[in-house]
Amino acid sequence: MKTNFAVKGTIKLGVLCLFFVQIGWSQNSDQQQLKNIYDAALTKGKSYDWLNYLSNQIGGRLSGSIQAQQAVNYTKQELDSMGLDRVWLQPVMVPKWVRGIPEFAYFETSPGVTTNVPLTALGGSVATPPSGVKSEIVEVKGLEELAVLGASKIKGKIVFYNRPMDPTLINTFAAYSGCVDQRYAGALEAAKYGAIGIIVRSMNLRLDDYPHTGSMSYGDLPEDKRIPAAAISTNAAELLSATLQLDPKTKFFFKQNCKLFPDVESYNVIGEIKGSTHPDEIIVVGGHLDSWDLGDGSHDDGAGCVQSMEVLQLFKQIGYKPKRTIRVVLFMNEENGLRGGNEYAKVAMEKNENHIFGLESDAGGFTPRGFSFDGPDSSFEKIMGWKDLFEPYLVHLFEKGGSGADIGPLKNERITLAGLRPDSQRYFDYHHAENDTFEQVNKRELELGAATMASLVYLVDTHGLNP
Amino acid sequence: MKTNFAVKGTIKLGVLCLFFVQIGWSQNSDQQQLKNIYDAALTKGKSYDWLNYLSNQIGGRLSGSIQAQQAVNYTKQELDSMGLDRVWLQPVMVPKWVRGIPEFAYFETSPGVTTNVPLTALGGSVATPPSGVKSEIVEVKGLEELAVLGASKIKGKIVFYNRPMDPTLINTFAAYSGCVDQRYAGALEAAKYGAIGIIVRSMNLRLDDYPHTGSMSYGDLPEDKRIPAAAISTNAAELLSATLQLDPKTKFFFKQNCKLFPDVESYNVIGEIKGSTHPDEIIVVGGHLDSWDLGDGSHDDGAGCVQSMEVLQLFKQIGYKPKRTIRVVLFMNEENGLRGGNEYAKVAMEKNENHIFGLESDAGGFTPRGFSFDGPDSSFEKIMGWKDLFEPYLVHLFEKGGSGADIGPLKNERITLAGLRPDSQRYFDYHHAENDTFEQVNKRELELGAATMASLVYLVDTHGLNP
Repeated sequence: MKTNFAVKGTIKLGVLCLFFVQIGWSQNSDQQQLKNIYDAALTKGKSYDWLNYLSNQIGGRLSGSIQAQQAVNYTKQELDSMGLDRVWLQPVMVPKWVRGIPEFAYFETSPGVTTNVPLTALGGSVATPPSGVKSEIVEVKGLEELAVLGASKIKGKIVFYNRPMDPTLINTFAAYSGCVDQRYAGALEAAKYGAIGIIVRSMNLRLDDYPHTGSMSYGDLPEDKRIPAAAISTNAAELLSATLQLDPKTKFFFKQNCKLFPDVESYNVIGEIKGSTHPDEIIVVGGHLDSWDLGDGSHDDGAGCVQSMEVLQLFKQIGYKPKRTIRVVLFMNEENGLRGGNEYAKVAMEKNENHIFGLESDAGGFTPRGFSFDGPDSSFEKIMGWKDLFEPYLVHLFEKGGSGADIGPLKNERITLAGLRPDSQRYFDYHHAENDTFEQVNKRELELGAATMASLVYLVDTHGLNP
Repeated sequence: MKTNFAVKGTIKLGVLCLFFVQIGWSQNSDQQQLKNIYDAALTKGKSYDWLNYLSNQIGGRLSGSIQAQQAVNYTKQELDSMGLDRVWLQPVMVPKWVRGIPEFAYFETSPGVTTNVPLTALGGSVATPPSGVKSEIVEVKGLEELAVLGASKIKGKIVFYNRPMDPTLINTFAAYSGCVDQRYAGALEAAKYGAIGIIVRSMNLRLDDYPHTGSMSYGDLPEDKRIPAAAISTNAAELLSATLQLDPKTKFFFKQNCKLFPDVESYNVIGEIKGSTHPDEIIVVGGHLDSWDLGDGSHDDGAGCVQSMEVLQLFKQIGYKPKRTIRVVLFMNEENGLRGGNEYAKVAMEKNENHIFGLESDAGGFTPRGFSFDGPDSSFEKIMGWKDLFEPYLVHLFEKGGSGADIGPLKNERITLAGLRPDSQRYFDYHHAENDTFEQVNKRELELGAATMASLVYLVDTHGLNP
């Protein structure tokens, strides 16, 4: 009995040892693979060169533009050259909104005494009449003030939305979320009270001279009720507000001739490495290929596109053969329609594809700080078990929250979605503005982001997300 | 007996509850104070305006220069206006090294076929002869290669140190440490083998056209044996190395007329808030006021100076009255002598002052990631107990390691020294180069760094560092 027990004990101990050796080996092997991934990203990465081409040879890539099509062609060609198992274009109809000739704006304190103002039409806005609009200004801090003022104070005027982003929020995306209703719904709401146009303070924490564009919506407002909408720079917003304190009769003038054309065909650009053992389980990594037209869209979201391509390039580089199918998707039309993201999810559902994980990079090419996750608790707990592996790379932030707009339509009760979370302090200095350019992207920061994404995709692929 | 026990138990429970209430209250109060500090930094901070003045109205502040003196006057005046308990200048003799007229350099593949090279004299280097030096080049990857080559291969030549910073190190300061011996001791070592000058690849992870200066030493080499030393840009180093592969007879020419003058008097700038209950316990927070002369020294270390001043400004702003004496010290001459740091520690020792904690910011004005600490284990453990308080501000890194050069001389077995650790990815793009300018500093990142410093100083002041 005693001997027997001892033997059993030894066997148990043996199994236990094997178990720990296995865990130990797996941990070491993961550590080594993450090191391989980061080393390769920092020494043999291609993301920075790809971004240079997208930004400096092509430029801003608004949906439906020549540049958007050039970006489709260029990234497909680069994916073709990577030796993937499959590369294809997924057709999708996208809106085609064109800014037209440069906007012009000023305010006027007395006849002829004018101050020019940096202004940009909001994406999707209608034009002003050819001679522009000019009227007195009603300054508000938010949509809810309109009801208090009522039509009598608003009719025939230009509404000026001037609630700034909250500088005390450490996550600048939270500050953005707290403000962007003014841009998105400002025209729709003001039109209901008879305003003839709206201007909005740029979504920018910094005081500078760049107006920031971005999407807006007229909801179901009939075409003849739609009023022109534009953003002015934060410096101009401060100056205009101070001027209105001194002289409430100050008038504002702006002129823009932007126009919405019928939808045109465009594409999501897709490439994949077929999984060796679970080819039917799909992991998607992506960013959006379109951008606004003011800058060259380096941070939003050229960075996310080239980082996503880099994930597959790094796997090739270090000789990692994934078990599951790893697919890079460069989505078209995130900025003003999300048509690419919706189409991708629609086709995936039609084909009954099994997506287990999606990761999007659409928060700038800055130093990666971590991820936010949207999915089953069991997946989040499993991922939290990998947190320590990221410690040497100073990636600490693993939290529940949103993922990315383009992968959002894939959401169901099984899939885990994630968003890369880079340092957010500078992001809104450049977001949707003329200064979102290649020079503002640091090569190492971009590469570290790609390596951080590749590391998470490697871990999900190797270990799966089941408890 | 039973009753008695119950009473005792109740008393114990009461004490325990009080204890937890105390801890709970203290934790809440700390949370609130940190929030007050961060909010004030992001809404009422002065660091960015101070830095604007230092950088754009004064500029590079090399020890012994007019600009260094202007910086002393300006910062003293600003401290004077802050309502501190005491502000003073601490005299210190500093070296005065002057760059002179712009350097000039080229390499020559055949007579008259030359390529100009961006070059900067290293700080402390002697001049070349008035007509420059010109010779063949010996390229090496480090100091240890010289002994292998020997005098026969080196005598009469210019040694070219070309070991790059290791891009795979996540902490770029580690990559810097692994390379900087070439700059610091390159001339001293090459002179022993009869070299007539040295050039070194700039300490920069990025490929660009900026040469980066920095300190170097001739050790105890006699004056007549000293050879001129300079840095070339990373792009130039790559090009020169490739050219040498094609043509090992390529010659290098450079000319510089820098000069070391006799020491001059300068100052550490000091201000303090007297402690309310432990005025004899001193907490120092500082950066260095001098910089190199090429850029305007915004990151190195204008940022550290204004952040240190901000710590006291924030305490005034939120109405926090420290128990201990909080002293800001803007050290003179960190870059080429450390005279300010040494003098401060010497005077502190002479006066038998009791410094319990020192915190330096000298790693750039980027997003703060945490601190490194040098001191007793018991202090480190106590500080680690505050780590969670920094979580909402995305400050995660608390590690043992170095602190800061200027506070280093205060080291003894009791004091705890710390260094702010900002994100390091971009730092060496600008370090000691012409592009270390105000535009490269982000206002929020700078302010978050100041708030992070103020928070740690607040915690040390409130709770002390005893176990």
